Amino acid sequence: MGKKRIVILGGGFGGVYTAMHLEKQLRKIKDYEIALINRENYFVYQPMLAEVVGGSVGIIDTVSSLQRRLPKTTLYIRDIESIDLEKKAINLYPQFSHKPSVVHYDHLVVSLGNVTDFRATPGLHEHALPFKNLSDALRIRNHIIDTIEAASTETDEDLKKALLTYVIGGGGFSGTEIAAEINDLVRNLAKKYPTIDPALVKVYLIHSKDRVLERELSESLSNYAGKILQKRGVDILFGKRLATATPAGAILDDETKLNSKTVISTVPSSPNPLLEHLKLPQEKGKIKVDATMQVQGEDCIWAIGDCAQIPDLQTGSTCPPTAQFAIREAKVLAQNIVNVINGRSTTEFKFKSLGMLGALGHHSAVAELFGFIKVSGFVAWFMWRLIYWMKLPGFDRKLKVAISWFLDMIIPIEAVQLKLSPSQGINSLHFEPGDIIFHEGDIGDYLYIIVKGKVEILKKKQGEDVHVANLGEGEFFGEMSLLNEKRRNATVKCVEPSDILAIRKSDFGALIANFPKLKEQIKSTEEKRKEH
Amino acid sequence: MGKKRIVILGGGFGGVYTAMHLEKQLRKIKDYEIALINRENYFVYQPMLAEVVGGSVGIIDTVSSLQRRLPKTTLYIRDIESIDLEKKAINLYPQFSHKPSVVHYDHLVVSLGNVTDFRATPGLHEHALPFKNLSDALRIRNHIIDTIEAASTETDEDLKKALLTYVIGGGGFSGTEIAAEINDLVRNLAKKYPTIDPALVKVYLIHSKDRVLERELSESLSNYAGKILQKRGVDILFGKRLATATPAGAILDDETKLNSKTVISTVPSSPNPLLEHLKLPQEKGKIKVDATMQVQGEDCIWAIGDCAQIPDLQTGSTCPPTAQFAIREAKVLAQNIVNVINGRSTTEFKFKSLGMLGALGHHSAVAELFGFIKVSGFVAWFMWRLIYWMKLPGFDRKLKVAISWFLDMIIPIEAVQLKLSPSQGINSLHFEPGDIIFHEGDIGDYLYIIVKGKVEILKKKQGEDVHVANLGEGEFFGEMSLLNEKRRNATVKCVEPSDILAIRKSDFGALIANFPKLKEQIKSTEEKRKEH
Repeated sequence: MGKKRIVILGGGFGGVYTAMHLEKQLRKIKDYEIALINRENYFVYQPMLAEVVGGSVGIIDTVSSLQRRLPKTTLYIRDIESIDLEKKAINLYPQFSHKPSVVHYDHLVVSLGNVTDFRATPGLHEHALPFKNLSDALRIRNHIIDTIEAASTETDEDLKKALLTYVIGGGGFSGTEIAAEINDLVRNLAKKYPTIDPALVKVYLIHSKDRVLERELSESLSNYAGKILQKRGVDILFGKRLATATPAGAILDDETKLNSKTVISTVPSSPNPLLEHLKLPQEKGKIKVDATMQVQGEDCIWAIGDCAQIPDLQTGSTCPPTAQFAIREAKVLAQNIVNVINGRSTTEFKFKSLGMLGALGHHSAVAELFGFIKVSGFVAWFMWRLIYWMKLPGFDRKLKVAISWFLDMIIPIEAVQLKLSPSQGINSLHFEPGDIIFHEGDIGDYLYIIVKGKVEILKKKQGEDVHVANLGEGEFFGEMSLLNEKRRNATVKCVEPSDILAIRKSDFGALIANFPKLKEQIKSTEEKRKEH
Repeated sequence: MGKKRIVILGGGFGGVYTAMHLEKQLRKIKDYEIALINRENYFVYQPMLAEVVGGSVGIIDTVSSLQRRLPKTTLYIRDIESIDLEKKAINLYPQFSHKPSVVHYDHLVVSLGNVTDFRATPGLHEHALPFKNLSDALRIRNHIIDTIEAASTETDEDLKKALLTYVIGGGGFSGTEIAAEINDLVRNLAKKYPTIDPALVKVYLIHSKDRVLERELSESLSNYAGKILQKRGVDILFGKRLATATPAGAILDDETKLNSKTVISTVPSSPNPLLEHLKLPQEKGKIKVDATMQVQGEDCIWAIGDCAQIPDLQTGSTCPPTAQFAIREAKVLAQNIVNVINGRSTTEFKFKSLGMLGALGHHSAVAELFGFIKVSGFVAWFMWRLIYWMKLPGFDRKLKVAISWFLDMIIPIEAVQLKLSPSQGINSLHFEPGDIIFHEGDIGDYLYIIVKGKVEILKKKQGEDVHVANLGEGEFFGEMSLLNEKRRNATVKCVEPSDILAIRKSDFGALIANFPKLKEQIKSTEEKRKEH
């Protein structure tokens, strides 16, 4: 073709709106084509994700097809391997072949948002559910339905309590919204099972400050929001943080232990790892740009949205990472690129926030508009819905969502799950001292490798658990029941905080069948252990 | 509780309708409770699965919650480990713990349906998509959208053609329905991409007989169905079968090679593996029952639906595996259980088929009713929709599906994917002689182990591929780029039909870090290979 190319990385509010505005001005930049690279082929309407968990919005009502919205943009629905500033190229991961593929750019718009990063807190990565994108929302919903169903037939009282306990970390917008939705969902579902005592249902919201939404709302509204949640049955634990998560539940920084099979963390959000090694000016992981959204010192690189640090000319601070800002930034950014291409001057981004809106489930919300109007309860909730509904792209989507909201009012809740993902072959687990990894007599379906930490092997002798051995880093256990037996012949207990890999029986079988030395190592370990 | 228990295995038409009819008569069997065990928490309306692929029916419009439909039945949403006839017990796999759990029964209804079994044809298990349940339908839909999107930006012409070629095996009801839906879907989607030449789209239906639906319909109607499909662009290859599938495509029994990234097989359907070792009278994997649906020689075991061989008293043959029959069987079966419990006599099942209906996509269908009425085209399609719609359970679901059909008519197609499943860590692959497993210079993201077969390592020397070595069973390759390099330093070509395991880089990294002997084995192999 020989056309020059504007390449946009990321399909969130910033990226998609930039592409939309560029498409409108394509005739002014005839030598250029627009390309957008994103992992998913849809744009997610983020503000409604919490409602997907609650079930009041249909799963795909919140997403719209990129291809539909951006008919004149070339879409690469692929993972990005790396960004090569020197060659002005984006390397993509292969999909249907192993060949690397490369997209060259003349102008680059980075709008990669941020990602959830659990690395700083042990066990979160392994046992907490993130809440960031659509598949997170679906996974949380499926998981919650699983816990209620399992609780309905569970005979072990402790396990039943843990199944009905839900722990949510973080009292910002996404934490309060999802806590509200989960609280509504589980209390509604639990009622349908005569075998579940509603008093067993516990929903905890863990927040490090002394009121929720303290950054987003004024004191009175933020207190109101907290009270609404509490009235509905959410236990807010103020001044506390998630310290660890294990298969047994959450441990807080004051050592409170919450036995739970559902830990959700909305807190640590960090920059996209693709930016880490990029040689662009950055601050706290965000790309520093001027008020025209151009990267300082680069003439064809732009950044927008949550991954960019844009000076806020209204407040003297930096622009907040919200959809409200990203949408407005996109319009200015697109115009600036067109202007640069045509040799005209660029404009600075300047926008005064309209206010904040947060849903609290059950037809209730809080809002703070233009800095002085405060609304709460049903009116705020209605406003919230109306504003977001008006922002939905396209008439068809508006119609679908309106119908779906209407049906939601007249049709009772239906807890249908979509289970797509087969459970993975290799899982990472985290345990704290005292946790039992498995009991003698349990079904043996996994082999375990200790990556870090220490465990203790116990065997029942005359009704008592007798210490048999300790195992540490690099050692493995659970292989006996994989090779020979169906049931575990010992109990394994965690002694020090441990990171452990679990490999499913069937996958491991394939491995040992093909690596004679691996089999050898396992066999010889087994022989040694039999001597006990 | 001390109550006796009727346990139903499986939540298809047979199982769910039996539970529904038993619930209605619960007062007649006061000492009993009803339990149903199923992997999913929903009942799938099977006849509409093909429409899920096409997108004209919303994903969850086809499923309804078991809990809603069966409020008086105890539901176990779990996988079954084994059926213990001696102890009258069902062993379930653990879900949130490792403890095995057991459900005892006094009456057992087996309605486990059948499963897709690809074992007889090499490569099908690895590279063909089954079409049997809801997640299959969603996976097929996602995969097809992937192929179109990848094709829209693919520069390699051969790969582009393969991406736009779709091969469907089997010309029965599910094969023709899904071929029709896929054909509509891809031709519609392809139009939206200016970079895709519609002439490149190929949809093949492979059928072993000389006309489609030859078992289900009369000759004239079946010829009509075939013609409709062909007119729409489906290439029907008569008198052929799928012989192999590989990452490169499908190979037929006459050695025709169809290069394709999408092979779907609807053919080999086999009994549920749980029944294999069960000591009950069986024929061709189906449980033999008398016309009351009681297993011969057992007084409390019943079987129904696709997993049962029930004498058809109307025709002298056996009842066909259709929803039409299963629904009617359930009513008689439930009544018989109630009668046996109350010491009354049982009734034999007797039903005359109402006819057959099959959709052909694009507002077209064929039907054969009461043995003499033949309908085709739009009228048959409308009838098809109407009949299934009437059978949908509950007013709310009827309303939702009606709205969804209505919206489908006025709103253009939207190809949004739901990607839930992370790709698995260990994949099985099948290759045929001449297939390239990877090329020199490709991205190295997997390690490969040869389970069966033989491959050849080639290296480019002065522009020519030079043979370096052969590898066989139990040997592995691709480890170099895992340990050191980013790009493959050799090409690997299949020499004999090969089954190969591929382990993702990240998962393998965790393994070698923890098994020193495994690392040792790989290192020493690597050293040896470096000598080349």
